[in-house]
Amino acid sequence: MANITKKVSWSSRADESGPVGEATPLLNGSEQPRLPRQLSGGGNIFQIGRLSTVDLEEEMTSEEESLRGRPKEIPHNEKLLSLKFESLDYDNIENQLFLEEERRMSHMGFRCLEISRWVVCGLIGFLTGLIACFIDIAVEELAGQKYKVVKKNIDNFTEAGGLSISLILWVVLNSAIAMVGSIIVAFFEPIAAGSGIPQIKCYLNGIKIPRVVRLKTLVVKVAGVICSVVGGLAVGKEGPMIHSGAVIAAGVSQGRSTSLKKDFKIFEYFRRDTEKRDFVSAGAAAGVSAAFGAPVGGVLFSLEEGASFWNQMLTWRIFFASMISTFTLNFFLSIYKNNPGDLSSPGLINFGRFETDTVAYNLYEIPLFIAMGAIGGLLGALFNVLNYWLTIFRIRYVHRPCLQVMEAMLVAAVTATVSFAMIYFSNDCQPLGPDHTEEYPLQLFCADGEYNSMATAFFNTPEKSVVSLFHNQPGTYNPLTLGLFTLTYFFLACWTYGLAVSAGVFIPSLLIGAAWGRLCGILLASTTPNGSGWAVPGKYALIGAAAQLGGIVRMTLSLTVIMVEATGNVTYGLPIMLVLMTSKIVGDYFVEGLYDIHIKLQSVPFLHWEAPATSHWLMAREVMSSPVTCLNRIEKVGTIVDILSNTSTNHNGFPVVVQDTASEEPPKLCGLILRSQLIVLLKHKVFVELARTRLTQRKLQLKDFRDAYPRFPPIQSIHVSQDERECMMDLTEFMNATPYTVPQETSLPRVFKLFRALGLRHLVVVDDANRVVGLVTRKDLARYHVGKHGLEELQLAQT
Amino acid sequence: MANITKKVSWSSRADESGPVGEATPLLNGSEQPRLPRQLSGGGNIFQIGRLSTVDLEEEMTSEEESLRGRPKEIPHNEKLLSLKFESLDYDNIENQLFLEEERRMSHMGFRCLEISRWVVCGLIGFLTGLIACFIDIAVEELAGQKYKVVKKNIDNFTEAGGLSISLILWVVLNSAIAMVGSIIVAFFEPIAAGSGIPQIKCYLNGIKIPRVVRLKTLVVKVAGVICSVVGGLAVGKEGPMIHSGAVIAAGVSQGRSTSLKKDFKIFEYFRRDTEKRDFVSAGAAAGVSAAFGAPVGGVLFSLEEGASFWNQMLTWRIFFASMISTFTLNFFLSIYKNNPGDLSSPGLINFGRFETDTVAYNLYEIPLFIAMGAIGGLLGALFNVLNYWLTIFRIRYVHRPCLQVMEAMLVAAVTATVSFAMIYFSNDCQPLGPDHTEEYPLQLFCADGEYNSMATAFFNTPEKSVVSLFHNQPGTYNPLTLGLFTLTYFFLACWTYGLAVSAGVFIPSLLIGAAWGRLCGILLASTTPNGSGWAVPGKYALIGAAAQLGGIVRMTLSLTVIMVEATGNVTYGLPIMLVLMTSKIVGDYFVEGLYDIHIKLQSVPFLHWEAPATSHWLMAREVMSSPVTCLNRIEKVGTIVDILSNTSTNHNGFPVVVQDTASEEPPKLCGLILRSQLIVLLKHKVFVELARTRLTQRKLQLKDFRDAYPRFPPIQSIHVSQDERECMMDLTEFMNATPYTVPQETSLPRVFKLFRALGLRHLVVVDDANRVVGLVTRKDLARYHVGKHGLEELQLAQT
Repeated sequence: MANITKKVSWSSRADESGPVGEATPLLNGSEQPRLPRQLSGGGNIFQIGRLSTVDLEEEMTSEEESLRGRPKEIPHNEKLLSLKFESLDYDNIENQLFLEEERRMSHMGFRCLEISRWVVCGLIGFLTGLIACFIDIAVEELAGQKYKVVKKNIDNFTEAGGLSISLILWVVLNSAIAMVGSIIVAFFEPIAAGSGIPQIKCYLNGIKIPRVVRLKTLVVKVAGVICSVVGGLAVGKEGPMIHSGAVIAAGVSQGRSTSLKKDFKIFEYFRRDTEKRDFVSAGAAAGVSAAFGAPVGGVLFSLEEGASFWNQMLTWRIFFASMISTFTLNFFLSIYKNNPGDLSSPGLINFGRFETDTVAYNLYEIPLFIAMGAIGGLLGALFNVLNYWLTIFRIRYVHRPCLQVMEAMLVAAVTATVSFAMIYFSNDCQPLGPDHTEEYPLQLFCADGEYNSMATAFFNTPEKSVVSLFHNQPGTYNPLTLGLFTLTYFFLACWTYGLAVSAGVFIPSLLIGAAWGRLCGILLASTTPNGSGWAVPGKYALIGAAAQLGGIVRMTLSLTVIMVEATGNVTYGLPIMLVLMTSKIVGDYFVEGLYDIHIKLQSVPFLHWEAPATSHWLMAREVMSSPVTCLNRIEKVGTIVDILSNTSTNHNGFPVVVQDTASEEPPKLCGLILRSQLIVLLKHKVFVELARTRLTQRKLQLKDFRDAYPRFPPIQSIHVSQDERECMMDLTEFMNATPYTVPQETSLPRVFKLFRALGLRHLVVVDDANRVVGLVTRKDLARYHVGKHGLEELQLAQT
Repeated sequence: MANITKKVSWSSRADESGPVGEATPLLNGSEQPRLPRQLSGGGNIFQIGRLSTVDLEEEMTSEEESLRGRPKEIPHNEKLLSLKFESLDYDNIENQLFLEEERRMSHMGFRCLEISRWVVCGLIGFLTGLIACFIDIAVEELAGQKYKVVKKNIDNFTEAGGLSISLILWVVLNSAIAMVGSIIVAFFEPIAAGSGIPQIKCYLNGIKIPRVVRLKTLVVKVAGVICSVVGGLAVGKEGPMIHSGAVIAAGVSQGRSTSLKKDFKIFEYFRRDTEKRDFVSAGAAAGVSAAFGAPVGGVLFSLEEGASFWNQMLTWRIFFASMISTFTLNFFLSIYKNNPGDLSSPGLINFGRFETDTVAYNLYEIPLFIAMGAIGGLLGALFNVLNYWLTIFRIRYVHRPCLQVMEAMLVAAVTATVSFAMIYFSNDCQPLGPDHTEEYPLQLFCADGEYNSMATAFFNTPEKSVVSLFHNQPGTYNPLTLGLFTLTYFFLACWTYGLAVSAGVFIPSLLIGAAWGRLCGILLASTTPNGSGWAVPGKYALIGAAAQLGGIVRMTLSLTVIMVEATGNVTYGLPIMLVLMTSKIVGDYFVEGLYDIHIKLQSVPFLHWEAPATSHWLMAREVMSSPVTCLNRIEKVGTIVDILSNTSTNHNGFPVVVQDTASEEPPKLCGLILRSQLIVLLKHKVFVELARTRLTQRKLQLKDFRDAYPRFPPIQSIHVSQDERECMMDLTEFMNATPYTVPQETSLPRVFKLFRALGLRHLVVVDDANRVVGLVTRKDLARYHVGKHGLEELQLAQT
């Protein structure tokens, strides 16, 4: 039987980016010492760079770990597609083991599985709600302490002079807290930086982002977000909730913690990518639900970002997790607020109730709303462009952790200084309400019984500022205050997003929008006849907030529902939708959404919903990678080890072929096997020769694969002796015997649809006699996108 | 070249249900007269029976039409799967013509298409809203007139005696109106009967239900629903809105009306099943949105019923249509109510606003809610079982239109009589409120300044009764009234559903549930300490309504959202979800949901979300139909005509094969072609020989296929001369060159997933050398379901 394994790169394009060379066979177990991977033949995969927070591999040895501190400065090119990301296996590997297990399972067994799925979703919702509750209470308490200290200090020094001491106190407090938040992120878990939404988007899209759903990430994320909000940065605590929910889901559903080395021996059936990704969508939804009190919005967020094939039961479970999550948060917050049973705070941010009677809208206001949507789109695009440049700058020059911490401290200090200056120079005094709705009213230079209006916007957690912009009586803010606030907060928020702190952009966006929206309302009320009748500032603040947020993040359906649920008023559905649509259309004309920009900067092979419209002239033949490294159904162990050790190719899926011994025909496709499976087989030494001598031994079971999931050992850690290299391995039982295939003439959109709808990782391209001619993977499809000059092709690179 | 066409049935199972016989080649154009199809060889496809409202074929000649009036009484068996339903082609037919068109289209062209999709969705929303508005106003006006007449009559005769005259007046009025509604349905368009939701569910599932989206159906549906509601039947006008929206969508998106013979020459690109089904989902969502003022609920309904592959842009368009629809309804209703600009009636039914303050729920009430959910599940199951028996009875004995009309009249008369009796014998008098919230207060034997409480429930449109049960002050109804009302209305509603009138079951269900729910509330308030404090009857009415509706229709996610949107209060989300889940679990233990029962009674090959869990041991080899009728790439016209004319098989998709002339190997798969395409080819005489002589003539274009869509002529109408039979047809250009295939060993769940996720109609099963061995269609997959004794297989029959 001829060995048809071909030792060439599976993607011919990859060849251009690095030397292929003859692979260095790593003879593990022979005298040849194990080379550190970064020195081996095609080891260019380690030129990672800190393209922000996502790193290459789950498995890093300690010496490799130490390299992470000093990455090289690499030139950045957004026309690249990174080869370092792998897909999740959303398609079940239907090999004989799997089928046998499924066939053994009774109807009752499947029912029990279904029940445990519900239990897991309930747990996810509950824990996510608890985490949200913890974050909320921690922020409230700590920020309360901070504001009390600073306020007391300011009050003391206002009369006596020497407010500069107050300023220094404020700056030092903020910087110190922000420093703590930044240190844990930058030094311990860089992937916990930012809102985490881009990472979760990628994960739900089917891309394996290393370390994104680990326990450590969760701890750093939660501690980090508390620090950033308390540290007075222009950030929100809502985005990180989505990431937290996802981590909880990934952890709970596996019934074990690899970090804590604790295996509860439950939910073992769920230890594969298919099930795990489903639970992660539930977790993300629970996170949204807890953040905004928007369970339906959470479900739609998960579906908008993650779903490929819609499954009714899954959706229903996601909804259940969302409901439990908001209910848990609500319940515990009501206890915290000494008002048990009052379920009126379903989310971390509550916009407060918009009553239809007080703020109904008229038909003639709709054009105004649309105009505001356009403004939001413009401002959002400006925000994104500025942040894009800033991110490029950061990738080039601010990639060391200590620099990142210093930048975070600088931003915290500047934020405090600017806030103080704004408050100091503002002379917008407002009478204190009779019911003292302001939590920390700063009197400063105002008369007794009055407070500084600029301080309500700056001297407060951003969530409370948003609510006060929505609901305070007309006349609470004067236009100049709002204008200045918008301007400063815009730049502060833009600077803040992308820092090495754990923080979200939702609330700052809402705040900016609410400020200029309220300004619009005030201007309309004063310039139009009857304006004061209908131009309620709170209503325009809401529309502005929606416009600004839509302009920045460009989410559509889910955002509308989130806004509607957060306002608790269905009437605003249509205006909010129109505003979001306008801002998206206007914004998309200039630049992509913020999350998409950050995803693109990572060179992640992100698959959109459909293939580019004008790609019908491309065929599978042109898209696929070829030639393909194939394995025989009964293959020599040495060959397999060599192929797996070949770092220049680093393939993950191998078509299995079989040749009719009688005829001279080329071999035919008979299955597909994954690198991870081969590694487990090698580890358990499932060799044909050994099987004959060890007939009494137990057969390899699905459990062995599950135990190794998700951190399969690298091939280098597996010891294969020279004798064993001469053995044969029979893959029949373990390969997926019915991989999906397409003919060579299939058009790109058709390939794309199959790939996306079924969440595939490998799609084999065959000729008319079922012979393997190529393999389509995520990277082959993600390469094509519509640019300014029609269809463009991204380059693949080992960045 | 060997002719490999096999004239055997494509499903070997179908052979058992009827004689195959040698097909009678219908030599159209030869001397042999055209036989009416019901007399030809395998013409058993015409043993249709009125398995309620769905008929066999779109194309019926007039003589066939006349047979419809006298169908044979056929025994019914729910273990059958009908062969008469065809699938929609949700998979694009990517033949050369299509690819060429797509390749010619510029990026701008695709953008214009996208814009026109939005325009179409806007139109769908607008028109659906208008229709809803029309129905609402018509019902309001006509019912108002009727109630005024009857009330005046009753008021007159209460003092004078002779109330029997009032009874007769009421009965005659109701019967007459119901008769009109029933006549148009039974005689003109039987498919307009019922709520239309089962039919739309099937359509969105991918099944072609004849005549379901025609203009005539819409007209009959709208007129019918007005008559049934005004006729005082226990029905709602909400379900039919979903059907109406779907019809509007199907009509608007095609840019022409085949019924009216008017082609606007627009939206020609949308003339295929793929696009049409997408628009129909938007229409259904717009219908839900208009019915309940629930745009998000509408989107979720469409997705829950219809989506296979979730597409973000599509969802967003569906949402747009929903928003426009509720907005249009709201806007025009506000004008009708002389209160323009007051956008407070977003749906046909408005539950009225539940304020959080007045009707908050406590944690300890949740077990009570769950118990009510269980009651709802039980009552729902009872309702469904009764209705199932009734439907079986109707299928057997009440299938003539005149009988159906008489039954409808009888039900209307009984409803009026029972209502009258209940009101007459009730002595529950309540004081008239100061603001006269009751629209038609019947004094009857009550003292002056009081009215009969039973009359508010019966002497009113069901929508208003629901709202009064939700919101009237505690004490408005006494328990006996509510109990009696529940009992009578339960049986009336159960009897009514399935009549040959156009009407929905949502509102009756809500009404029954609200009645017993309120009863529960009253009992709780009187039997528990402090009960009167927390057991607000309106709250329990809402929970009861949700439980009852959930128990009958078993919808879950979308129903929760619809209820939440209709109450305008997010707080009730969790209780409503728990109640709906409980009622579904309890109900499913006994019997399926009402819509599913009716779908099953039609023997529709409905595909659920997933293959039965215990079906992993089945392989494509066992599931597929074989042998398959294949065509050669260059095929003789006569053969094609014979195959298409073979009524005993009536296949719709034919794999196209090609044989290497050099070798002796069996032919290999090279494409797939549909019956409809072959018919267009035959009609335009695209024969190889003719092409040579008519080189100057225009080539066949995609437009020719679109013009024929969706009512392709039957093969009998195409004239093929004896000479032409000897010509050859080249299918290369027209066949789908890259059909999806699976190997024989693929497990049923895997086949199912591929089929369902991509919305396929035909899936070719090939061996390892790419030779056709079988064909999987919808019927092959829908056959398997989980019964009481594990996996069961339904029989296929030509019913």
